Amino acid sequence: MTKLGLFSLQHRGQESAGIVAVEDGAARAVRSMGLVSDMPLAPLDALHGSMAIGHTRYSTTGSSVIENAQPVLVSSRGGSIALAHNGNITNAGEMRVDLEDLGSIFASSMDSEVIVHRLARSAANTPERRLADALSGVEGAYSIVMVLGDTLLSARDPRGWRPLVMGRLNGAPVFASETCALDIVGATYERDIEPGEIIAVDALGERSIFPFEKKDLKRCVFEHVYFARPDSRIFGGSVDRARRALGRRLAQECPATNADLVFSVPDSSNSAAIGFAEESGLPYELALIRNHYVGRTFIQPTQATRDAKVRLKYNAVREVLHGKRVVMVDDSIVRGTTTRGLVALVRGAGATEVHMRVSSAPVTGPCYYGIDTPSRDELIAANNNLEEIRASLGVDSLGYLSLDGMLESVPTGPEGFCHACFSGDYPTPPPTDPDKLRFGCGC
Amino acid sequence: MTKLGLFSLQHRGQESAGIVAVEDGAARAVRSMGLVSDMPLAPLDALHGSMAIGHTRYSTTGSSVIENAQPVLVSSRGGSIALAHNGNITNAGEMRVDLEDLGSIFASSMDSEVIVHRLARSAANTPERRLADALSGVEGAYSIVMVLGDTLLSARDPRGWRPLVMGRLNGAPVFASETCALDIVGATYERDIEPGEIIAVDALGERSIFPFEKKDLKRCVFEHVYFARPDSRIFGGSVDRARRALGRRLAQECPATNADLVFSVPDSSNSAAIGFAEESGLPYELALIRNHYVGRTFIQPTQATRDAKVRLKYNAVREVLHGKRVVMVDDSIVRGTTTRGLVALVRGAGATEVHMRVSSAPVTGPCYYGIDTPSRDELIAANNNLEEIRASLGVDSLGYLSLDGMLESVPTGPEGFCHACFSGDYPTPPPTDPDKLRFGCGC
Amino acid sequence: MTKLGLFSLQHRGQESAGIVAVEDGAARAVRSMGLVSDMPLAPLDALHGSMAIGHTRYSTTGSSVIENAQPVLVSSRGGSIALAHNGNITNAGEMRVDLEDLGSIFASSMDSEVIVHRLARSAANTPERRLADALSGVEGAYSIVMVLGDTLLSARDPRGWRPLVMGRLNGAPVFASETCALDIVGATYERDIEPGEIIAVDALGERSIFPFEKKDLKRCVFEHVYFARPDSRIFGGSVDRARRALGRRLAQECPATNADLVFSVPDSSNSAAIGFAEESGLPYELALIRNHYVGRTFIQPTQATRDAKVRLKYNAVREVLHGKRVVMVDDSIVRGTTTRGLVALVRGAGATEVHMRVSSAPVTGPCYYGIDTPSRDELIAANNNLEEIRASLGVDSLGYLSLDGMLESVPTGPEGFCHACFSGDYPTPPPTDPDKLRFGCGC
Amino acid sequence: MTKLGLFSLQHRGQESAGIVAVEDGAARAVRSMGLVSDMPLAPLDALHGSMAIGHTRYSTTGSSVIENAQPVLVSSRGGSIALAHNGNITNAGEMRVDLEDLGSIFASSMDSEVIVHRLARSAANTPERRLADALSGVEGAYSIVMVLGDTLLSARDPRGWRPLVMGRLNGAPVFASETCALDIVGATYERDIEPGEIIAVDALGERSIFPFEKKDLKRCVFEHVYFARPDSRIFGGSVDRARRALGRRLAQECPATNADLVFSVPDSSNSAAIGFAEESGLPYELALIRNHYVGRTFIQPTQATRDAKVRLKYNAVREVLHGKRVVMVDDSIVRGTTTRGLVALVRGAGATEVHMRVSSAPVTGPCYYGIDTPSRDELIAANNNLEEIRASLGVDSLGYLSLDGMLESVPTGPEGFCHACFSGDYPTPPPTDPDKLRFGCGC
Repeated sequence: MTKLGLFSLQHRGQESAGIVAVEDGAARAVRSMGLVSDMPLAPLDALHGSMAIGHTRYSTTGSSVIENAQPVLVSSRGGSIALAHNGNITNAGEMRVDLEDLGSIFASSMDSEVIVHRLARSAANTPERRLADALSGVEGAYSIVMVLGDTLLSARDPRGWRPLVMGRLNGAPVFASETCALDIVGATYERDIEPGEIIAVDALGERSIFPFEKKDLKRCVFEHVYFARPDSRIFGGSVDRARRALGRRLAQECPATNADLVFSVPDSSNSAAIGFAEESGLPYELALIRNHYVGRTFIQPTQATRDAKVRLKYNAVREVLHGKRVVMVDDSIVRGTTTRGLVALVRGAGATEVHMRVSSAPVTGPCYYGIDTPSRDELIAANNNLEEIRASLGVDSLGYLSLDGMLESVPTGPEGFCHACFSGDYPTPPPTDPDKLRFGCGC
Repeated sequence: MTKLGLFSLQHRGQESAGIVAVEDGAARAVRSMGLVSDMPLAPLDALHGSMAIGHTRYSTTGSSVIENAQPVLVSSRGGSIALAHNGNITNAGEMRVDLEDLGSIFASSMDSEVIVHRLARSAANTPERRLADALSGVEGAYSIVMVLGDTLLSARDPRGWRPLVMGRLNGAPVFASETCALDIVGATYERDIEPGEIIAVDALGERSIFPFEKKDLKRCVFEHVYFARPDSRIFGGSVDRARRALGRRLAQECPATNADLVFSVPDSSNSAAIGFAEESGLPYELALIRNHYVGRTFIQPTQATRDAKVRLKYNAVREVLHGKRVVMVDDSIVRGTTTRGLVALVRGAGATEVHMRVSSAPVTGPCYYGIDTPSRDELIAANNNLEEIRASLGVDSLGYLSLDGMLESVPTGPEGFCHACFSGDYPTPPPTDPDKLRFGCGC
Repeated sequence: MTKLGLFSLQHRGQESAGIVAVEDGAARAVRSMGLVSDMPLAPLDALHGSMAIGHTRYSTTGSSVIENAQPVLVSSRGGSIALAHNGNITNAGEMRVDLEDLGSIFASSMDSEVIVHRLARSAANTPERRLADALSGVEGAYSIVMVLGDTLLSARDPRGWRPLVMGRLNGAPVFASETCALDIVGATYERDIEPGEIIAVDALGERSIFPFEKKDLKRCVFEHVYFARPDSRIFGGSVDRARRALGRRLAQECPATNADLVFSVPDSSNSAAIGFAEESGLPYELALIRNHYVGRTFIQPTQATRDAKVRLKYNAVREVLHGKRVVMVDDSIVRGTTTRGLVALVRGAGATEVHMRVSSAPVTGPCYYGIDTPSRDELIAANNNLEEIRASLGVDSLGYLSLDGMLESVPTGPEGFCHACFSGDYPTPPPTDPDKLRFGCGC
Repeated sequence: MTKLGLFSLQHRGQESAGIVAVEDGAARAVRSMGLVSDMPLAPLDALHGSMAIGHTRYSTTGSSVIENAQPVLVSSRGGSIALAHNGNITNAGEMRVDLEDLGSIFASSMDSEVIVHRLARSAANTPERRLADALSGVEGAYSIVMVLGDTLLSARDPRGWRPLVMGRLNGAPVFASETCALDIVGATYERDIEPGEIIAVDALGERSIFPFEKKDLKRCVFEHVYFARPDSRIFGGSVDRARRALGRRLAQECPATNADLVFSVPDSSNSAAIGFAEESGLPYELALIRNHYVGRTFIQPTQATRDAKVRLKYNAVREVLHGKRVVMVDDSIVRGTTTRGLVALVRGAGATEVHMRVSSAPVTGPCYYGIDTPSRDELIAANNNLEEIRASLGVDSLGYLSLDGMLESVPTGPEGFCHACFSGDYPTPPPTDPDKLRFGCGC
């Protein structure tokens, strides 16, 4: 069942996958590089237990090694510790140095490992208090599901950066990053874990504590814009409805009055493009076809030009585009590379005008809280003004959604969201040495 | 380049893939089970040559073994013979018996192997005439790309069942089942291979012959309905436009007057559902999300119930469906199993009425010409009337497109199409013993 | 049980392995590159049947591909044909050209495939007569075990080049190249297949025919010298006893009067070295240790010098060799490369004199009958006289066994053996174009 | 070069293999299950550095998982720690509990991990003193090669249980368990690491310290009897010469006066059998042939009877054994299972009398210091008297070497050896709960 749930969260990390199952206090792990569907079957079938946690991971280049696959599993005074962590801890580097000075050894380059060490050192007398000890002083983003001995624990940082939901199946609690994982196992959504909350589940029952000082809510708006699955409900609202609203607002803010049709860059922009079509009255067309059989290893970076890489993944439908003035809707533009390739494809199929519309604000800074955005140097909107971006992408017009428009469109907004990568308004001081402090991403 | 093209034809066969390259008359093959992206990289990189052909295959259960992977590669008096065959030869069984009586040995259970043997035995003095000899008397469907010694040959059966197109890249001809394969390599579409035509390409130039008696055109309508990629142009028309027209006609023939919205079973039905929405005036929604990470081996048949299998691949969007009367558009219903699971999913997400609309006629018989439909016993529409199907699927109403409506909607129709699986009007006598005669599919 | 037998014949071929099992007339094959122990377990476990044949293969470079793995398995008029062939057919090239002219296609580059084609074309009315037809006119070496429909067949060429024995287990006949394969399955040795004999086993009983003209016996003396396993009985005599006798004779012909000890190049020369020790009265020592964990892929040819390759496989025992005048016994010297490396190793460990003794005559020509000797250019004894070889190997003295001494030492000798690679006395005209005619080895 | 050395130590562990290389203070590891030759090539080729350590491991059932492969590699305050450990720490369990109580987490079930933790916690100001801190109080056997930051360290426990040698190549020091690893890389043997010695090598030079209280020498006599390679020099003496002497002494203590010949159970008993033959005057024969192609996975435990397993690995030579009264020499008898199978094989080949001679004393207890002997229940000599063992094995007579005879035969004996598994004279108190305290073997 854990593998089913993991399966539906594959979009959150394709680098490695793992499951830990606990039976009578004995924990066993299966971890492998690659997709959930690539996990070895025989060891998985051998996993049994009354509790299990799983994880899918992506990280920055360099630390994509099996040592960094999660869940982490170690033994400690308090029994086995198995940890799955989504998010990024911004002061992990400092904490690691402190722990090493106390004699701790680190087997991975993941920020998550500091939590495990701190947990092992806590002298508190309940599992939830030990986790509270471990998380005390931890800055940044964490949505955590873990097992400590015979207790299942989940925790979400006080600013609530990453989603974390609780469901119920046959009376037993189920935790997951998104509700789509509840759906696939047939569990019923119950509620979100609250920012700053720790929940413990064991033979003694379910307990909830709020051990941390309250902080301003900083939920990641990019989850609504791009990262979460459209069939999920996060932060109390529907992702699909959020994207539809973003598309509608985009059509209001940046109309394309003389265009013939609107289409999306599939699949993450489908909802927004339909919203744009509805609001603008332009017909919605399927002008780009995505090839879902694209393997990660088939075409090597050195074998193919940039255009070939776009062509492997997308093809344009000539009969839809030929002779038309078109609106292309995408959810975001990061480096601009893919967009440029798509524009060439669309023009090659005969479009006479290409009007680019983006259902989020320009990305002008990196994320330190768990989204794998590149450094500022590579962000097209961090280094160019609107006209320069338009010219660079080769489009006839370009419109981004405004920051306010974006925040007002998402459910339960506009307050309580982190928009640092759009606005530069970072809730924590940016790490002084990102290279060192972000030694791998804790997604 | 051949692998790029093959890549875009992955949807036509996921069972095995292969490439043969010919350099200075020496032919070498790489074949493997599974997807194109699973092909071993090192041997592929070692393939070089002035000519290459590729193939992706699917077949009926039982013959899914490496021996049946294509292209076939053998040596013969006339040099190497490498053959990639799409379609199904209906009299292959009889031909094989005849060849075995002459002392031929068969290394596979594929119908395609009879063509190779007949070619090796031909005494004609040009490659194209040898292929004509080999194909003389062959009944059924074949779109063929092959190499004989230093000559590249392509051929399409006189009834033109399967698509086969010719493009050009840097002056050299390129052949493929669908135009999307030309797009991915950057070739320009030139024309379709004509039914009954054989084209030879070698150092002497390009030659076209029409050696067979003319027959009635019987292009496969199911290619437009479901099988081909929407970005392809086949049989002289756009697949996307065909599906849009099928959806519009469906809305005319089977309206759903009191419904709130329309959605598709992604991705093959997207065009048809948009057509239905346009014609009916109902809003088009994304109510089903498809998980494209589904691996073939992850969940074993015995591990999961039917419902779980549907849930692995699809999830319903509660916020879209809850409290709504919905129209679900699919391109076809074969066994009904998946539809039944989807309907349960949609109702589980809160839809109050589910109106099923199908953008093709009821499938009432198997295909003997290259589509892997199951036997009549398993076809829901072969064994139930409309009301029984509706009840079995659990929908509030059910509407299929009429046979005429379907044929009138596809480009260059309504004449010249094979609709045997819908109408029972088989262009050839059904094989007397399908189990024996269809010993594997020649896709 | 077939896999057990195959396992004990691993020394006859390490390139690929295969098994075909026949159950109720239906034959299924499992073939893979590499060792028997590398064969995939699941497919092997799924093989069942009343008859099975297996094969291990080695070949010359270039044709080491899965297409050339044996047993060959095809279907034909007379039912399935599965063939395992040891030996080399010297006129296979001419026969292949003739068959191609009749329209046959070849799926491999193996000489063995001509037998299959000729068998499929035979009109004889019993399986054994069909095989006799197929083998009529075939020149060279073949020991064959095969299945035709429901009949198990074995055959040995009229000159009896390669061994082939018949055993019995629970009343049923078992055929194998060497008796060690009978031992491992617990079968009792019954007799050798006679040169020129064909044995058929089916529901009608066991039948033996001698359809070919009688020819001079030409059993391969190199089987006794090196190739067969010492625990086997071949050609009516013990391999171990043959090697012991070769070693004794070597001590008589080429004594080493002032040496301190004798040792072997393990493991194939152990018997001969003990024979030498016995006859000479010198103590037998274990001066070279062989590392049996040497993998084929671990150290790439380009990564290591020649010396390193010898060192990977052997180490010298300093305490045995230091300060000693030693006799090193090997069964044969082909290129001289390994010997040269071993001599360096032995001198490096402190031996003061190295006297090389070889328990066979100098190898001066290639084998056309199934042993993979290199071309004449690479044979050290084909291009140098005794003193030149001694100097090249860096030994203090060098002695080969004489041709007569060798033939007189093997059981049932000296008549009736092929010694072409030693004497140049080839029983058939050497193939005019070895490169073409020996298109792969039929071992 | 490290892989070459590892390769020659394959006999010390076939369960997993690993290498860590350190370049400019950055350490990288490659570890995999199985043989050295199974290690993935590409990652190995990517390892570079000025220092490298390697390890081959075997362990008891249950902990044969990748998490337990060595070298261990972690980061700590003092830089990277990479550790390869041979031996077994008898108080690891207690130390682990203590460390966990201090907040340490354990990622494996290996005893070796306690050393790493203790090292990370040491506040000493040189690498060698930190290792001395870590090893202080550690009971049991350890021969260690490790890297701490930029310093290469080696250490051997004060009782010197396991061998550890130092060689030199191009001026640089090389450490290995046995001298055969020096030979394969071309290094010259310099000296043994002394019991209780720690050697540090870094840019400041080579330093040796003896930080521990002196203890009685307890070198493992079983290394000479069976475990080490015969071409190695350990504990200051030749293994081959030791085994020869053991065989001679065995012939004196337990002659077999009426026998016709003597043979060994290859390969570990070859030297002893030759010694027996020399002393007794009986001819030495090769009566058992060992198949070195035996794969670990080919024949499943459940597929084969005990006899079949012996037959897979050995075959008897009928021509040598038939009608003979034979002496079979083996180095040791543990469970008796294999011996029983061999005796049946030898009798089946026609031997009329089988006289078993064993070149060590009866094994009556488990080893707690790094040899993987089974529990006392399974040891045939722990539970039966001589006559019972003889009857159980099915031999005509049985003779073991005496404890004194064994110790007097090995070089630098008879004092200073551990013979606990033979004599029950354990140098440390046996661990109170072996199951818990020997949580994996530190080989």
